[in-house]
Amino acid sequence: MKKTTFLYILLLWPILNFGQKKDLNLMPWPQEVEIGKNKLVINADFTIGINQESSKRIELATTQFLRRLANKTGVFLKNGFAQNTSSIDNPTVEVSYNSIAKLELYEDESYQLKVTKNKISITATTDIGIAHAFSTLYQLINNDADFYYIPEITISDSPRFTWRGLMIDCSRHFMPIHVLKRNIDAMALVKMNIFHWHLTDDQGIRIESKTYPELHEQGSDGLYYTQNQIKDLVRYASVRGIHILPEIDVPGHASAFLTAMPEISSVPGNYLIERNAGVFDPTLDPTNEKTYEVLTNLFVEVTALFPFPYFHIGGDENEGKHWDESKHIQQFMKDNDLKTNHDLQTYFNIRLQKILKKENKTLMGWDEIMTDEMPKDVLIHSWRGKNEGFEEGGTQIKAAQLGFKTVLSNGYYIDRMQPASEHYVVDPLSTATLTKAEEARIVGGEATMWSELVTPLTIDSRVWPRTAAIAERFWSAKEVTDVENMYQRLNGVSNNLETIGVLHIRNKEVILKNITNYQNTDALNKLSAISEPFKVYSRNVDGTEYQMYSPLTLFADACTSDAVDVRMFNELVSNYVSKKDEVSKNILIDYLSSLKNINDKLKEISKNAPLVKRILPYAGRISKIANIFEIALKNKNMTKKQYVELIALLDKKENTAINLDVELALTASLKKLAASFFRKKL
Amino acid sequence: MKKTTFLYILLLWPILNFGQKKDLNLMPWPQEVEIGKNKLVINADFTIGINQESSKRIELATTQFLRRLANKTGVFLKNGFAQNTSSIDNPTVEVSYNSIAKLELYEDESYQLKVTKNKISITATTDIGIAHAFSTLYQLINNDADFYYIPEITISDSPRFTWRGLMIDCSRHFMPIHVLKRNIDAMALVKMNIFHWHLTDDQGIRIESKTYPELHEQGSDGLYYTQNQIKDLVRYASVRGIHILPEIDVPGHASAFLTAMPEISSVPGNYLIERNAGVFDPTLDPTNEKTYEVLTNLFVEVTALFPFPYFHIGGDENEGKHWDESKHIQQFMKDNDLKTNHDLQTYFNIRLQKILKKENKTLMGWDEIMTDEMPKDVLIHSWRGKNEGFEEGGTQIKAAQLGFKTVLSNGYYIDRMQPASEHYVVDPLSTATLTKAEEARIVGGEATMWSELVTPLTIDSRVWPRTAAIAERFWSAKEVTDVENMYQRLNGVSNNLETIGVLHIRNKEVILKNITNYQNTDALNKLSAISEPFKVYSRNVDGTEYQMYSPLTLFADACTSDAVDVRMFNELVSNYVSKKDEVSKNILIDYLSSLKNINDKLKEISKNAPLVKRILPYAGRISKIANIFEIALKNKNMTKKQYVELIALLDKKENTAINLDVELALTASLKKLAASFFRKKL
Repeated sequence: MKKTTFLYILLLWPILNFGQKKDLNLMPWPQEVEIGKNKLVINADFTIGINQESSKRIELATTQFLRRLANKTGVFLKNGFAQNTSSIDNPTVEVSYNSIAKLELYEDESYQLKVTKNKISITATTDIGIAHAFSTLYQLINNDADFYYIPEITISDSPRFTWRGLMIDCSRHFMPIHVLKRNIDAMALVKMNIFHWHLTDDQGIRIESKTYPELHEQGSDGLYYTQNQIKDLVRYASVRGIHILPEIDVPGHASAFLTAMPEISSVPGNYLIERNAGVFDPTLDPTNEKTYEVLTNLFVEVTALFPFPYFHIGGDENEGKHWDESKHIQQFMKDNDLKTNHDLQTYFNIRLQKILKKENKTLMGWDEIMTDEMPKDVLIHSWRGKNEGFEEGGTQIKAAQLGFKTVLSNGYYIDRMQPASEHYVVDPLSTATLTKAEEARIVGGEATMWSELVTPLTIDSRVWPRTAAIAERFWSAKEVTDVENMYQRLNGVSNNLETIGVLHIRNKEVILKNITNYQNTDALNKLSAISEPFKVYSRNVDGTEYQMYSPLTLFADACTSDAVDVRMFNELVSNYVSKKDEVSKNILIDYLSSLKNINDKLKEISKNAPLVKRILPYAGRISKIANIFEIALKNKNMTKKQYVELIALLDKKENTAINLDVELALTASLKKLAASFFRKKL
Repeated sequence: MKKTTFLYILLLWPILNFGQKKDLNLMPWPQEVEIGKNKLVINADFTIGINQESSKRIELATTQFLRRLANKTGVFLKNGFAQNTSSIDNPTVEVSYNSIAKLELYEDESYQLKVTKNKISITATTDIGIAHAFSTLYQLINNDADFYYIPEITISDSPRFTWRGLMIDCSRHFMPIHVLKRNIDAMALVKMNIFHWHLTDDQGIRIESKTYPELHEQGSDGLYYTQNQIKDLVRYASVRGIHILPEIDVPGHASAFLTAMPEISSVPGNYLIERNAGVFDPTLDPTNEKTYEVLTNLFVEVTALFPFPYFHIGGDENEGKHWDESKHIQQFMKDNDLKTNHDLQTYFNIRLQKILKKENKTLMGWDEIMTDEMPKDVLIHSWRGKNEGFEEGGTQIKAAQLGFKTVLSNGYYIDRMQPASEHYVVDPLSTATLTKAEEARIVGGEATMWSELVTPLTIDSRVWPRTAAIAERFWSAKEVTDVENMYQRLNGVSNNLETIGVLHIRNKEVILKNITNYQNTDALNKLSAISEPFKVYSRNVDGTEYQMYSPLTLFADACTSDAVDVRMFNELVSNYVSKKDEVSKNILIDYLSSLKNINDKLKEISKNAPLVKRILPYAGRISKIANIFEIALKNKNMTKKQYVELIALLDKKENTAINLDVELALTASLKKLAASFFRKKL
């Protein structure tokens, strides 16, 4: 029964480790929380009464809550819909609000929630506040052995930042509308409010244009959103209190655009939709009046679909090679006293700003648009920081100091596949001393999901649950920074997300089944619990290894950041190394022994699964590593020879030709453990 | 290692049991199949060339095939799109067809597929034939230890029936568009061609009406399809070779309709959207000219959205109570010499037929519309058979004999939760001797998914994989009837369906996790492998136990027909009983021993999971049963007292108040096993 005991310990781990079980899985953590001792038990008589006229948002928030409540608790509610308080006696939940939100920035999103033994009261200024309160209330559903309940609690809550965004790149890989809808549902649960829709890039124009149908017809491989679908999504998001910010990325990232419209390219050529990842040369011609004619018509068409007052023009990563190559563009620059490509791009941006102003839209762009000449009434999207040769923390400090409003994405690039903790510690206001006025210009932040290596099957597990931690950064008080506490709550939030329809957990098994050719997936699942996909763009380094139609159903695609066993393993190693704790030692031995066996199991499975064969070198390496450690722990000793062998094994990389593209996430802890045997000796 | 051995045997079961592993998971089975010995190995150079102009269907079929091929095999294809054969050297697959299908009945859907060692040729009359060929080709992807390949094969194929439908009731529970899209994807994989969209019923009007917006505004709780969404779905289906047949169910099933429009009811009243299941009285008034005005306008509006030349008016289950109660309706019947309610309904139907004719639509209705006076140019949807007091096999024989074209659904009611085998044996032409002309009037069949107890979370597991077996009945030769062989192939088809995006397997874990409160689900999963939801409407008997907003996230909702361990268990019992086979006996002992332990595991989990508590009486009963059998098998003996106790336990029903709503699917085999101990003695 050794194995069962071991599994039991694993299951109990969070409880053993973090002391008393935390009852509150709230994320983002509210501004003020006061917990009482009573419980409001969920039973069939649970009802919701609304003090005012309802609104579409209130209707959705209440009905959705009642459905989710019934489905989670198995309680057969007698009344499945909220009613006006005039027509219902003593409702369990009483809802009051003042006005219907217009869905602009700086809207009042605050709410108050008070739960007593037999009554819940929810009040807010706007119906969006009410919707937030129901997200909180859903997260508060708890249970004992016999009942589901909501704990007695008083919450007063409002966001720290007004801009709490998630960008999804739908160009590199097209994401059907239903993928976006379930991500919008998830955003609503963690109180994010801006969905930034990256609609165009080198790899595809994803928006139907009625003025220039050649754009989506020739630039999308047939994968684009119709204007009707866009309207539908805008409505869907709005009812959930979420704005949609569209992005048409110009003048660079234009391969697909110029495939359809070579006549406005900087350099004549036969353009093709790009199939690789990277930064490419095709660029619109900013000296051609036809360019502005096209963009005017396109922007008029697109802005009409999106009520949100901001419009994102991209503007990033234009290296200007085609501008350098073009004689007429060089001449134009001379004629207009534009000294650099940056000056030319600013000229282009200012013309776009004027076009957008006519449509009552504020221009927003990636931080490359922030030049001296750029008017201050545009919104700077700060994406570059230390890694890109700029100051630590990104360009948003400079933007705010220069007088621009700014949104931070540097530090929130979730496609880099870093752990949630690394994004969690990034604060839009953490790195500089700013005046109040400057601070106020930093309107919030955005997580960015670039999709070079992401498909509809895997996007959920790349966005969630990590983005919930980022959402907390944008909503909660600056002081809410305890990483351990965040991870504890994140697990519950992750389960809730899965329950409301996000596929980040369940899709993993589908990938593993495909890899094992529908054989038993336990061994591979165990392997994935200690394996993380290559981070920080070290997968697909030159951009051509994976093309946009390459398989993203490999082992790396089943693995996620924050691999599930890693934090537990790290803790065990710490305990053992620092205290020579015997319990930790025994658990480690069991765990290593089970790792050792993965390879044999996979070998067996590989007899009928070509894709498992690719994983064997990695599993074999882990088996050897686990074996050395198991012996060393049992003997409380490691030979120098074993140590040397071990470090070589830990540092070994698998052949990249097999596209394994994962790293052993236990490596750091294992090195620490290995070193511990020589602390005195070495 | 006993447990591991046992699991290993379970995994090998299909192979041990059915002899050589079948390589072909084709379903529906093609008309002609000839298998060779060579293999076409999938590698990066795999390409598709098209001999003609492409069409939207060909584009989708080829691109989708290439994506699925890459994702399944992990092969990095150099070329991700099909090309014209003029621009590609020696493509792996060569596609030829004559014309673009118009998507009418009796279309040529045939195709020929020939795979040799290094070449695949696909030919068809229409592009729909080509799409079918790629569905077959996808099912043909196979593997050995090192490679994925397609076996050498020659297939010539065409459907037996032109009408191969799936109906989804979107009224009782609303199904968002993406749920329908993934079901349409699944239909395409098994070559079904008609999606019957049940859009209205007592519980909701699910279609936007621009003429009468009160219908969807007051009759849907906000859950309806916009006309844009409908157009989008029609296009989506069409590109996959699938027609959409809309149904507006009149004059009965009208609670939601009359909630919005009480002025055309048979009896004045305050109508409300129905929340229960059952047959209800609200009925349109067939004597009111306003009724025809409304239906004319509505049908003109709706028929314009659907290019398919048939239109379903429902017409079922009108018991005419409100007609009996209404003086002016009784007077109207006298004045018009209409003797019975059937005559009145025929009068109504004939008026609808005229309205539809003007829109170039053929009226279709459930078999209640088949009266003596009904013109023969309508299509009868046969749903009633022996269970409803009609002849064995349904009303379609009579319809065909009377001169009506007819579609069979009796026998294909998948909401009855019967095993696939029971639907599989039903043949639209099996029960009578018909003339050729009569036979020709039986145009096919339809599986019907009524949604009283089905939600977006569970619908996939209620429709699939069983409907694939029904699809085979409609497509394949009459002689393809081997149930064991069907089940063997069904397993592979089920995996393929999951891989292409159906959620029937992965959603189960989400339900189990919710029940266990996110604790370990292994025990509950094991229990679900021998438990089947109540069949044939024995769940929710009076229609009020479950209302439309009741939780359908219970254990019964995680269980499916054809519970996964049952066929294996039955086989083991048969082997043991007939041959006293020792191997079977030992596997049975192991299996029973593991069943015995489920209860203790669930007890532990129930300490933090109120929903698991509801399951304990059932798990406890199974534990007792398993224990008695385990001892009896070990001792090769069972006492009379044990036998009596056992039969009582096997016949015991759990308290219905806890909504367990599942049955132990091993009961018949266990009774057989128990009796075997007394074969000589009793």
